Amino acid sequence: MAILFHWDGATPEYWHGAFEAAGCGIDIRSFDAPGDHADVDFAVVWAPPAGRLKAFPNLKYIFSIGAGVTHITFDPDWPAHVPIVRLQDRLLVLDMSCHIIYWVLHFHRFYARYARQQAARQWLRHRYPENSERRVSILGLGQTGQDACIRLRDLGFQVTGWARSPKAIEGVSCLAGDAAFETVVREADILVNLLPLTDSTTGILNASVFNRMPEGSFVINCGRGSSINDDDLLSALDSGRIEGAALDVFREEPLPEDSPYWHHPGVSVTPHSAAPTNERSAAEFIAAQIRLAMDSRAPAPIVDLERGY
Amino acid sequence: MAILFHWDGATPEYWHGAFEAAGCGIDIRSFDAPGDHADVDFAVVWAPPAGRLKAFPNLKYIFSIGAGVTHITFDPDWPAHVPIVRLQDRLLVLDMSCHIIYWVLHFHRFYARYARQQAARQWLRHRYPENSERRVSILGLGQTGQDACIRLRDLGFQVTGWARSPKAIEGVSCLAGDAAFETVVREADILVNLLPLTDSTTGILNASVFNRMPEGSFVINCGRGSSINDDDLLSALDSGRIEGAALDVFREEPLPEDSPYWHHPGVSVTPHSAAPTNERSAAEFIAAQIRLAMDSRAPAPIVDLERGY
Repeated sequence: MAILFHWDGATPEYWHGAFEAAGCGIDIRSFDAPGDHADVDFAVVWAPPAGRLKAFPNLKYIFSIGAGVTHITFDPDWPAHVPIVRLQDRLLVLDMSCHIIYWVLHFHRFYARYARQQAARQWLRHRYPENSERRVSILGLGQTGQDACIRLRDLGFQVTGWARSPKAIEGVSCLAGDAAFETVVREADILVNLLPLTDSTTGILNASVFNRMPEGSFVINCGRGSSINDDDLLSALDSGRIEGAALDVFREEPLPEDSPYWHHPGVSVTPHSAAPTNERSAAEFIAAQIRLAMDSRAPAPIVDLERGY
Repeated sequence: MAILFHWDGATPEYWHGAFEAAGCGIDIRSFDAPGDHADVDFAVVWAPPAGRLKAFPNLKYIFSIGAGVTHITFDPDWPAHVPIVRLQDRLLVLDMSCHIIYWVLHFHRFYARYARQQAARQWLRHRYPENSERRVSILGLGQTGQDACIRLRDLGFQVTGWARSPKAIEGVSCLAGDAAFETVVREADILVNLLPLTDSTTGILNASVFNRMPEGSFVINCGRGSSINDDDLLSALDSGRIEGAALDVFREEPLPEDSPYWHHPGVSVTPHSAAPTNERSAAEFIAAQIRLAMDSRAPAPIVDLERGY
């Protein structure tokens, strides 16, 4: 039994420590020193070079060092018969919720206006609705979306959650399916995107959505960059329909130098930093899942490739 | 029975509506049209002109339209034998907690750096400690301080609360008294001031405090402006000991044009907007307290003038 490990940004001691603590740290290999390919049962990877994973004939599981999996499945030759276990990390969920809470409060309380006023030495308060009158809609009700819904509800916001399939969260209006999407959008003072990237979510946030959102509303994207039609968002920002957007993910990352997002006054850019993998807890999570697999039990969560997440 | 009402910024229909709903809206007077001064049992005021309140001989209670009372007691002639009921409003508590959460996350996750990077089109992530490793200290454990402690604890932060007298909050390290103040300061990665203004809190945040805080720590002031020694804070910011300060309250408000705070890169100025009085709910709260007083029951909370709050 060996583990193939690939992540350029890794801190090796975290991973060796976690593998050892879980009793699975005997034989760690790399693409540079793979040894006998047939020995490798598990791959733990972030963005493996295309065409390389397929060379391991006995892979039982691929462990993604991240919540998404397109960094693996973009490879046309990836071994699609091998189940992918994606990272599920309570710290990652908490970090994402904190990022969402920060930007919801930023827009709700008009802190961007205060920053502009400070530059002009202007002392002027802005009225804002009560939290209970501010409608925040979350697209995507996976573990992160649900946690964000609950925490925003506890801050008194009027929260709506939307997902492909029905969910129930106390004190949150949960809607599902295409017909309800219309309602969610029309009533979103602040729209938060957490949807995974699939065929049906690519470009889902486009002119027809922005035009139906309330005048002066806000967009927070910490799902996937390709869920937004960038030209449409920029037009909606220019027209004032959307007052502000906090974007953490982009079609191309790092965000290209010539992107208009960098200097649009209504846009806040963060460098895909909403919920960076916490290496130590990621290592512990993946080691625990490998341990389960070694014991012939089922690691989780396994990615459903039809749904795309 | 008559009520003297004084607040330049009031929306009269909120107050008349609330007084009527509580059954105490029969006779509302102003300083301009006070009628027979002896009729007035209750004063509902924000910043009454000096020397005017003492002219009402039968005042039973003064209701402050705000959580603080120095806008009343600054008047050397204020009728000090009349109990002051201060505003206690769950929306005010929630708004203050939201303001504190916003700035804690702002500093914890280095959003100011990302804003600067955006201006320079720079894509660079900053590592931050886990929430559980970030020590947030709250000075002042009144209703607002307690609520902020609980909400920050629920976001996973390591929270310490400090007050003059001992308190207990589950999952929060509560310290009290002068000796413990030393510990609180030394371990505050993010220091939040919510202390009321008294002789002992004037200038309490000074060079000796800033010099003992951890290198690169942060200050959030949403208590009273005079609790900070401004020159000392500016020096600590210049030296880098304090990396950032979010200031909502100032010795003089509006903040004077020539204040260095306006243009210091480490300072965020907001115009005393952390928890603006929500007029509708303030009116309801005060009307309910007047109703209690009319029924010979005790309105609350009564300000303890020895403590100063």
